[in-house]
Amino acid sequence: MGHLWHLLLPHTDPGMPSTSRYSQRGRVAECNPSSSPALASAIAASRQSETCQAAPELGAYKWEDAGKVPAAPRCAALSSELSGGFVHVKNPHLEAMDEDVLYHLDLGTKTHDLPAMFGDVKFVCVGGSPNRMRAFAQFMHKELGLEGDGEDLADICAGTDRYAMYRVGPLLSISHGMGIPSVSIMLHELIKLLHHAKCRDVTIIRIGTSGGLGVQAGSVVITDRAVDACFQPRFEQVVLGDVVVRGTDLDGGLVEELLACSKAIPDFPTLVGHTMCTYDFYEGQGRLDGALCSFSNEKKLEYLKRAHDAGVRNIEMESTAFAALCGLCGLRAAVVCVTLLDRLEGDQIRASHEVLQEYQQRPQRLVAAFIRRRLGLHAAAGNTRPSSD
Amino acid sequence: MGHLWHLLLPHTDPGMPSTSRYSQRGRVAECNPSSSPALASAIAASRQSETCQAAPELGAYKWEDAGKVPAAPRCAALSSELSGGFVHVKNPHLEAMDEDVLYHLDLGTKTHDLPAMFGDVKFVCVGGSPNRMRAFAQFMHKELGLEGDGEDLADICAGTDRYAMYRVGPLLSISHGMGIPSVSIMLHELIKLLHHAKCRDVTIIRIGTSGGLGVQAGSVVITDRAVDACFQPRFEQVVLGDVVVRGTDLDGGLVEELLACSKAIPDFPTLVGHTMCTYDFYEGQGRLDGALCSFSNEKKLEYLKRAHDAGVRNIEMESTAFAALCGLCGLRAAVVCVTLLDRLEGDQIRASHEVLQEYQQRPQRLVAAFIRRRLGLHAAAGNTRPSSD
Repeated sequence: MGHLWHLLLPHTDPGMPSTSRYSQRGRVAECNPSSSPALASAIAASRQSETCQAAPELGAYKWEDAGKVPAAPRCAALSSELSGGFVHVKNPHLEAMDEDVLYHLDLGTKTHDLPAMFGDVKFVCVGGSPNRMRAFAQFMHKELGLEGDGEDLADICAGTDRYAMYRVGPLLSISHGMGIPSVSIMLHELIKLLHHAKCRDVTIIRIGTSGGLGVQAGSVVITDRAVDACFQPRFEQVVLGDVVVRGTDLDGGLVEELLACSKAIPDFPTLVGHTMCTYDFYEGQGRLDGALCSFSNEKKLEYLKRAHDAGVRNIEMESTAFAALCGLCGLRAAVVCVTLLDRLEGDQIRASHEVLQEYQQRPQRLVAAFIRRRLGLHAAAGNTRPSSD
Repeated sequence: MGHLWHLLLPHTDPGMPSTSRYSQRGRVAECNPSSSPALASAIAASRQSETCQAAPELGAYKWEDAGKVPAAPRCAALSSELSGGFVHVKNPHLEAMDEDVLYHLDLGTKTHDLPAMFGDVKFVCVGGSPNRMRAFAQFMHKELGLEGDGEDLADICAGTDRYAMYRVGPLLSISHGMGIPSVSIMLHELIKLLHHAKCRDVTIIRIGTSGGLGVQAGSVVITDRAVDACFQPRFEQVVLGDVVVRGTDLDGGLVEELLACSKAIPDFPTLVGHTMCTYDFYEGQGRLDGALCSFSNEKKLEYLKRAHDAGVRNIEMESTAFAALCGLCGLRAAVVCVTLLDRLEGDQIRASHEVLQEYQQRPQRLVAAFIRRRLGLHAAAGNTRPSSD
């Protein structure tokens, strides 16, 4: 593993309500700036105080401040996080294994030096489509000011087509396919990867697409609560034939941070709401246009209106499992999805390819602004767009 | 749509028990041989009787018999199938739609001439991995004796990365991702596609990977019953907040046909057994190596042995939904999966890449033999292998 620098992250930004259980503590990010002179500069610049006090607010750091300050000592706040900020793998059997093959990622503890490859990862962004997650990685390459155009990013999981994974500075961008089983496999192996790599203080964000409920198409919904098809904040999992029910809490502080970042991006609406997660796209979301449908339009609307009354603002297929797994393993997690249509108005996604492409870039832009803010980079949020998807 | 030829399929093969509800009836396949002189020849050769009697047994037709017989009249047995052999879309709303956008396939009724593109499809093979389904299409290109090397097959769903689809003669090869939600989305849209295209007498086979239970790694399991994590032959689906329970019957005649085909492929074991379908790969399948695990090795083995006692021989993540959806929509469906390990011996998939590649080709080889037999092509089964995966 290369030499590491440590960056004090802003956690008491004046515009940021302190609702997170983490928000009264210092947070430290580690990045390997050797791969990015610009990023290294921003990180170095952010160390001017050389203490664990709150960093100056968003936009205070510029690339041109680069290199003024030498590497700072480790911040004591680093160890104040839960379990020292490490990912919690809750499996007593894992330590007894001499090798762990992360089969669906085509990685493993004997075949790869996971601490060297991933030890300084601080942000993980996940989404269904491999092409979209590649485009996001390329976009972030530019947003973080890394050298080169990012067009030649290598898929770390190139040995398999189950998932795609790209590394950009302190960020991993990973696809998870569609649905709870697919995202669960990826998360189990990702969480073990972060554990084996000894990552600390990782924030994970799902950037996805969804159907809206009573909100304008193209709106971005930051999930405050992931609920199931009965509008309950729970994730049911069958373990050895028994049903285990898990909570789906997400990090309230992250919701507020993301919402605050959205204020700087006025060209699309962003809101906070409940997200309903289903196992099926057609009947399971009350669509009339599947191969099977046994209910009337009236029954459909009655169901969707009940969901809306319960606070649901969008519907997708991964959030409850994502929230449950990340929550159990100590990852600070958020879900940010764009709505491709308003389900109270229809079922089919009929917007043009170009419109849908632009919609899908919206969560990327918001999360890019969030990561830049966390890294103390200047406030370009809202001014740039991903060039492709 | 091009001119269509009709092929009487062998349904009373001497070695084939008649357990299928279809087995006492004639079955007719339509293929568009204009794209394949060799296939056209085989089809023409199979028409020698020009009646609806049983066709001669496997291997009676050779490419060299090509072109001896002119196009035969439509076989009367064609209309004796359920609903004339058409796919059953069970949705009264669908006919009222002026357009149907098959969003995740990037196809639609207004943007594509679905009857021309797909009207003569008779076989659909599906599997999780897009690369594997491309390799299978290329393999079948050779197996069906189509012109060219099949290396330049176009992905029909190239406009999206959710699924990949390849067309080879009367066959579609489609990826479905991992897990029930992912396969369900694909199946809803595929079934509507087959309906819009007016396809008849379609057979669909899932060729996948799985964990074995008390069987040698590399065994191929033909599923006689798809069961859930409680070993019950049911698929539960939440519709408008209510749980709907569906049966998971598969086609018994297909099981027998596939098993009979396996006799000609002696280089790997093939067996018939129940297949357990779960929503999770780690805890849901009793693995000790996930990010979470709250049970002992003893409890795991107790569960897996109960599954084995209930007749389960392999475990995967799609079969119950696949069986339920296909069954409801009148598609004759089968599940053929190779086992990558014996779960009674371990959890991790540690075989070499080369061994796993060869394992994954086994269901392909069996299904290729089945399709060739159905098309009355000569009995090369077991002699060829897919060149890549």
